Amino acid sequence: MSSKAESEQPIGVFDSGVGGLTVLKAIRERLPAEHLVYLGDTARLPYGTKSPASVLRYALQATAHLRSRGVKLLVVACNTASAVALDELQNALAPLPVIGVVEPGARAATEARPAARHLVLATEATVRLGAYGKAIQRLDPKATVRELACELMVAQAEEGWTQGDTAIAIVREYLRPMIAGANAYHPESLILGCTHFPILGGAIRSVVSPHVSITDSAGTTAAVVATELADRALERVANTAGTLRLLATDGANRFARVGGTFLGEQLAAGDIELVDL
Amino acid sequence: MSSKAESEQPIGVFDSGVGGLTVLKAIRERLPAEHLVYLGDTARLPYGTKSPASVLRYALQATAHLRSRGVKLLVVACNTASAVALDELQNALAPLPVIGVVEPGARAATEARPAARHLVLATEATVRLGAYGKAIQRLDPKATVRELACELMVAQAEEGWTQGDTAIAIVREYLRPMIAGANAYHPESLILGCTHFPILGGAIRSVVSPHVSITDSAGTTAAVVATELADRALERVANTAGTLRLLATDGANRFARVGGTFLGEQLAAGDIELVDL
Repeated sequence: MSSKAESEQPIGVFDSGVGGLTVLKAIRERLPAEHLVYLGDTARLPYGTKSPASVLRYALQATAHLRSRGVKLLVVACNTASAVALDELQNALAPLPVIGVVEPGARAATEARPAARHLVLATEATVRLGAYGKAIQRLDPKATVRELACELMVAQAEEGWTQGDTAIAIVREYLRPMIAGANAYHPESLILGCTHFPILGGAIRSVVSPHVSITDSAGTTAAVVATELADRALERVANTAGTLRLLATDGANRFARVGGTFLGEQLAAGDIELVDL
Repeated sequence: MSSKAESEQPIGVFDSGVGGLTVLKAIRERLPAEHLVYLGDTARLPYGTKSPASVLRYALQATAHLRSRGVKLLVVACNTASAVALDELQNALAPLPVIGVVEPGARAATEARPAARHLVLATEATVRLGAYGKAIQRLDPKATVRELACELMVAQAEEGWTQGDTAIAIVREYLRPMIAGANAYHPESLILGCTHFPILGGAIRSVVSPHVSITDSAGTTAAVVATELADRALERVANTAGTLRLLATDGANRFARVGGTFLGEQLAAGDIELVDL
């Protein structure tokens, strides 16, 4: 049994930038009483094009900062950091529970579509490590997986180009070799393996057949968080809504402007606390 | 008069990533006997979305490393770092001559097109500081300047999407409000205020009228370097070609793959030396 004090502590959510706010949003919807503290390592984003050694180093520093804020559970909302460094982070932060987004995303996709042809859209670093492929093969040995690096779509999401001809053209440019032509892969399932991509869902949907399922990690990760808290009796039980604290390592103005799109609500620079790692 | 030893020292070229290789290429073509050492701060790119304080800190560290390699002159090939930190870098590194790319780019554009309507395409950080606008107004008070942040075009250049419908669609999306419609700005001169953009020159040209001049900083910066070396009697006089040394703070594989496009020649990961700042 955990103390009342511990259940009052916040859940920490870590990302390289603002994309993880899509995961935070899902956690907040699922667990509205929980206090949340989010850290975006905006001074060093993007992680997706960096080497594993750099990603690991940055993630260790950022998560140590969240631990120093007394979080009761930590979510690594960045796919790249989850793919590169989840084991190391779990070891470094033990006994703090640390949850990544790759495994929940893989589970959601294989449950939605058993024995299917999956296509993972992700950053270069996530694709290079093949983390989704490994997770899916373990969960569903009859599944097939390919992974596709869509680096430009990260910038596209940050720029807010979520709809219109150009937005669709960029998505189509990446997907065309996979969906057009007799010898194409023709995926039955798309996995949005980067937290930036859910806000491009409309553009992605318009490019693929309506029979293709599209899965992201946000909802399933929130469900895993809920289960983990329940198992450890760490849920905050209260009638009041939890608080939300937003931290960034650089650029409060940009965080507020771009992050608002991902969180689905207006943010002001004054809402963001700058921290130095 | 400088010693023979000093003229044998390399020219240092610093950028946040690989884009500055377009400037390095111009210097090498203009001054083939010079030894060159290039440092791309790939562990912390892009600078264009970071705060001025972070850009200054990173640039000070990177240029201090180049100085420790004994460079005789330093080129800040990154537009963002030039816009944010040139004065501070010149002070910190004095008496080492330090040349930025903003002033040469502004000079090239105003000489090519006096009293014109200029449009600067750049990163968010460069636009926020208005460095090109100030330089142009100083050089040509009759000129008009607007600046446009085109963040997605940085990722586009790195992805190598230099031609084709999608490449043109992205460029057109940014430029449309400036060139279409009776009340648009209708620039007579485009300034490529980010070292990534010269490789998108073809796509940019296809979107604007043939009467619009397109200027980048690379050639003029190389000319400024040549003049500065001559003034200080620091030119390397030799029949042998200069050597080229490439340093990066992260990701030799990616540097080689993406950098080759900017340098215009094939690179291998083994050509890149990783350094820790």
